[in-house]
Amino acid sequence: MDKVGIALLGYGTVGSGVGTLLARNADDITLATGRQVYLKRVLEKDPGFSAPGLDPALLTTRIEDVLEDPAIDIVVELIGGVGAALDFQLRALRAGKNVVTANKQLLAQHGAELFAAAEESGVHLRFEASAVGAVPVIKVLRESLVAAEVKTIFGIVNGTTNYMLSTMAETGADYDDVLKEAQRLGYAEADPTDDVGGKDAAAKMAILSSIAFHSRTGLDDVTYDGITGLTATDVAHGVRLGLVAKLLGVAKLIDGRMNVRVYPAFIPRTHPLAGVTGAYNAVFLESDAFDRIMLFGPGAGSVPTASAVIGDVISVVNTVKGSFVQNCLCYKNVPFFPDADMQSSFYLRLQVVDQPGVLARIAALFGEHGVSIASMRQEGGGDAAELVLLLHPVREQQFFSALDKMKALPDVLSAPAFIRVEGEA
Amino acid sequence: MDKVGIALLGYGTVGSGVGTLLARNADDITLATGRQVYLKRVLEKDPGFSAPGLDPALLTTRIEDVLEDPAIDIVVELIGGVGAALDFQLRALRAGKNVVTANKQLLAQHGAELFAAAEESGVHLRFEASAVGAVPVIKVLRESLVAAEVKTIFGIVNGTTNYMLSTMAETGADYDDVLKEAQRLGYAEADPTDDVGGKDAAAKMAILSSIAFHSRTGLDDVTYDGITGLTATDVAHGVRLGLVAKLLGVAKLIDGRMNVRVYPAFIPRTHPLAGVTGAYNAVFLESDAFDRIMLFGPGAGSVPTASAVIGDVISVVNTVKGSFVQNCLCYKNVPFFPDADMQSSFYLRLQVVDQPGVLARIAALFGEHGVSIASMRQEGGGDAAELVLLLHPVREQQFFSALDKMKALPDVLSAPAFIRVEGEA
Repeated sequence: MDKVGIALLGYGTVGSGVGTLLARNADDITLATGRQVYLKRVLEKDPGFSAPGLDPALLTTRIEDVLEDPAIDIVVELIGGVGAALDFQLRALRAGKNVVTANKQLLAQHGAELFAAAEESGVHLRFEASAVGAVPVIKVLRESLVAAEVKTIFGIVNGTTNYMLSTMAETGADYDDVLKEAQRLGYAEADPTDDVGGKDAAAKMAILSSIAFHSRTGLDDVTYDGITGLTATDVAHGVRLGLVAKLLGVAKLIDGRMNVRVYPAFIPRTHPLAGVTGAYNAVFLESDAFDRIMLFGPGAGSVPTASAVIGDVISVVNTVKGSFVQNCLCYKNVPFFPDADMQSSFYLRLQVVDQPGVLARIAALFGEHGVSIASMRQEGGGDAAELVLLLHPVREQQFFSALDKMKALPDVLSAPAFIRVEGEA
Repeated sequence: MDKVGIALLGYGTVGSGVGTLLARNADDITLATGRQVYLKRVLEKDPGFSAPGLDPALLTTRIEDVLEDPAIDIVVELIGGVGAALDFQLRALRAGKNVVTANKQLLAQHGAELFAAAEESGVHLRFEASAVGAVPVIKVLRESLVAAEVKTIFGIVNGTTNYMLSTMAETGADYDDVLKEAQRLGYAEADPTDDVGGKDAAAKMAILSSIAFHSRTGLDDVTYDGITGLTATDVAHGVRLGLVAKLLGVAKLIDGRMNVRVYPAFIPRTHPLAGVTGAYNAVFLESDAFDRIMLFGPGAGSVPTASAVIGDVISVVNTVKGSFVQNCLCYKNVPFFPDADMQSSFYLRLQVVDQPGVLARIAALFGEHGVSIASMRQEGGGDAAELVLLLHPVREQQFFSALDKMKALPDVLSAPAFIRVEGEA
């Protein structure tokens, strides 16, 4: 039987998971491919590296031992980062090796270069584990739905922030306390910037929209905002209004142009995404052809990620060379739709002086900018009152113009808090 | 460029949807496959058949015009039923044509014969649209998760009953009224037997467990029960207990043996499946490798089903012949795990005479059979009281033995109602 040799670049938690799954499920993989898929080489920087169950004879510190070995068909890059990982992936692709990776920032920042190298060599570049962990959303988009004209992708693609927001909604705790607890429990890293600031979600949305819209979308093309400004007050108002706060990635195709962003948003409590709590991820896809589909699962974790890598390895072995699914090579130039022209619904909270005429002035200002109020509620009293408004969908530029004017009003006491509202139930 | 000719057997709502998608998305399909995929022939019984947008020159009433045409690579069977459809599929496979179908009863009842014919001819047999409509659960199971050792599949695989149960929970209406309303709205057929009785769900579970467990599971191997016995009273008790009633397909692999069933069950309101309302379907997959994954989407509908058929057509064109994903040919003999030995949690409602000592006698009888009570609540008074119990997981044989004894007690006034409880939140 034909053999397929695998090299692992990096043998940390995911790498050792891949090694274990390859050995433990060898029979199923042979059933799935008709080939014997085996671990041929492991690259680690440290010459003294060792790991339980890993044959020391497989270890090397030299990338050349991988690139020059004709028995190695697939290189699995699990080093992470955009330095050595980029160099190794490019050299592997140019050496005619298929590449499987979980490295989302590398793909989002250097995807075009990598895809071009794969195309030139006629090899596969696969990256299921880079998007939503074990949930095969890339495979579904690339293969099942390739002719289905996906119009909208929106979802929860960062487990750290979803854990934090779920906890804030349940306990009423504020952002800082929840972050500390998430760090203590290992759901957030010591430096949580990429997660809470939205960069991690933005890289995933760049990858997903590239595949769904047959485009080349990079990290630079994604406007992102995180959850650092979200307060317990707004989360609690949302609960009262039947809305759940989530950090959403939202990619929309509008009249042939695309808009890809990451922002905190409220969704109705009855929306299928609202029930996605804890560190889980979920991606919602919409199309005229299939209505709507949701894929849900663990967004991270070493074993789920390793499982996604194995899925890619099997897919590389089984896919006809030259087909689209070999790589995401054939793509269209999809122009961008400006953020300012997007139609969005907004939640808005204002601190205003509690005097007659304030409401009228605010309503008039919105009216002048074509912003229509769906509901308004005033709370508190004494010197200051709190206004909570839900606005009908409006061109974002109009909303932000109105907001700028509003901040200048002497009636408005502090910076208004706003959150977009997404998703029909 | 290479051409791939398609024949459609049947040009009803799904068939015409496939025809439309093939024409409208020709460019995307070419991007996806590198081939020109086109409609070559349409089979309809009626020689006078016509349909908007369908070229009459493509029509035939003779299956031989399909089987003997060397330009036809893929036969899409959308006739339904297990008569002519079986004959045509077998002849197409034997003539060396790849077959794509949405016919779940045919696969569940004659799968072994069809797979054997496909294997003999070395062609593809694909059936994504037969399971959960547009949701590519078969592709995910066959390709992404083939080495992930899926241990449990459970889900909502029938839209009619899910619409009915959602309505019962929302409105408090009883089964008969909701069925009439569902029929009026087109969610239930005039003869709803296959849907409400569980046979439709059972066929889908046979197909899903065949793929997930690499087995040959037929309709005859699935124990099924429908929702005809479910009352508004029990649905309302469930709501009070934080439980939602669903018709579930449940397939479990226990120590190398499998148990596949369909029954009405309660799941916690916080479970991701609980939010799947209306005519939507969702399948929950569990494994040590990926934790849990849920796939959600429309379970039926002509356009989503057509979209799944197109996904299969693309997959046939792109898949390496000889690999497992060509067909589900390599399978293991998976023995069955008896229903009586399954461990299940139960909800139980009893009408009992309201006299001292009744509770003690019922508790004692459960104790004798090793059935442990998690919670009990008594309602009403006067001559009769209603007991609602939740039981800890127990071997089903013990539960049913206890239930038989209980029915014979003079304290118990009518047949007890029981519903299994599934799914941790």
